[in-house]
Amino acid sequence: MNERTVFFLSDQTGVTAETLGHSLITQFDSHNYRQVTLPFIDSEDKAREAVKKIDETGATDTSRPIVFSTLVQPDLRKIVKDASGLHLDIFDVFLEPLEVELNQKPSHESGRAHGMSDINAYMKRIEATNFALANDDGGVSRNYDMADVILVGVSRSGKTPTCLYLALQYGVYAANYPLTEEDFESGQLPDFLKQHTSKLFGLTITPQRLQQIRKERRPMGRYSSPQQVRYELRESEKIFKRFSVPYVDTTEFSIEEISSRILDSTGVDRRVRP
Amino acid sequence: MNERTVFFLSDQTGVTAETLGHSLITQFDSHNYRQVTLPFIDSEDKAREAVKKIDETGATDTSRPIVFSTLVQPDLRKIVKDASGLHLDIFDVFLEPLEVELNQKPSHESGRAHGMSDINAYMKRIEATNFALANDDGGVSRNYDMADVILVGVSRSGKTPTCLYLALQYGVYAANYPLTEEDFESGQLPDFLKQHTSKLFGLTITPQRLQQIRKERRPMGRYSSPQQVRYELRESEKIFKRFSVPYVDTTEFSIEEISSRILDSTGVDRRVRP
Repeated sequence: MNERTVFFLSDQTGVTAETLGHSLITQFDSHNYRQVTLPFIDSEDKAREAVKKIDETGATDTSRPIVFSTLVQPDLRKIVKDASGLHLDIFDVFLEPLEVELNQKPSHESGRAHGMSDINAYMKRIEATNFALANDDGGVSRNYDMADVILVGVSRSGKTPTCLYLALQYGVYAANYPLTEEDFESGQLPDFLKQHTSKLFGLTITPQRLQQIRKERRPMGRYSSPQQVRYELRESEKIFKRFSVPYVDTTEFSIEEISSRILDSTGVDRRVRP
Repeated sequence: MNERTVFFLSDQTGVTAETLGHSLITQFDSHNYRQVTLPFIDSEDKAREAVKKIDETGATDTSRPIVFSTLVQPDLRKIVKDASGLHLDIFDVFLEPLEVELNQKPSHESGRAHGMSDINAYMKRIEATNFALANDDGGVSRNYDMADVILVGVSRSGKTPTCLYLALQYGVYAANYPLTEEDFESGQLPDFLKQHTSKLFGLTITPQRLQQIRKERRPMGRYSSPQQVRYELRESEKIFKRFSVPYVDTTEFSIEEISSRILDSTGVDRRVRP
């Protein structure tokens, strides 16, 4: 398989360049990509250092590197362009049409967080994270009145990471409750959840995948046995249907996708935007 | 201030379109942006629905909407283009140069997670998240041998959300330890940390900001008093210097930025890429 080095250049974290680049290179699967992020390029020295790294790679690789960059300052962009490689720069392409459309010159300042609005966003994300931690796994707090959404599902169906992602990324207050043996036997939800059925969202997963995940945690015993896994999933889906809880099968989805689907399906508003 | 509606269109979560669009519109601060994400546009019906929404907005707004889109399928892209607005599409712009460079036709398949590599990435992120939770706040586990990085700092300096972000986003094993009154008095790190000084990374913050954050949690008492906050920060920075622990002031940074700076400064490898 062909090898290519892909650089992500940024005067900030590099997340934008990575996200953009990743969604593009996955369209071309005949190559193996070695991915290198060069963040915080905020001076001419650092820009020249980046050029050096790219050129060194270009000299040893069989093909020239691909460079995704999101440098805001024109002088730094100019330096970086000297590196040998295919350059794809979102500011080069999209800044001008936006300038015309909005009838304003771009600030050319890197978009680092500052000002009260960002402090507020930070606080909201922290508070949402604390909420998720305090209300994880049916935890002691059970502040379900405050929850935007309450995830329910069997153990290891993806509830905790999804709640944390919703909190960190969107400031959404997400609690979660793991369905228990008692719930499966009664076919009921506990009373403290029945008051909040409109906030419930179910996660399910295929038995094969759940078994695989549980085995990582506890290789032996009933917890990861095929019978137990199938039983729990069947009963949990019955409960979702009985109480009209919308649910999603997480097997094929990343944490980002599960989170987006929950927001899309429930209509819960993001409290902050990334 | 001028108002504009900005749409983020995607056949997936919309995260790429949001990230791209956000980094561009922050360059033009003379406008107030109302941001609307339309994710999971994966059929002609949904594409037409999106066009309807955009056109309705265009009809009521004083200016036409701005549309960032990352639709992979050409037929859906074509439908969406009918909406009135300024269209900025990364696939329109970047797919062709990549096709030439890589000498391969793009798959035009939406980049949803599938296959074993994604299951592995999912597992790694989950395991890293479990690690962060078990090793949060100097927690019971203290599996510091397994940690990629151990964050230290005073209470509310941003350790927990940063650890969780490192885990969820990059699969990095991040533990954290809150410096205690005892540590401040002795000017020492506890013995179980001294074995791992090479993994330590410090977080600090300005007294004003820390006080503001702590007041949200406990408005009264010593915890959020100016004296206590200044004392703790001064002593924690002394400890960082004494043990040559690299550290960053988190006051002006978002969680993403803190995380990127930690990876950049420590050289810790990402175990997965978003």
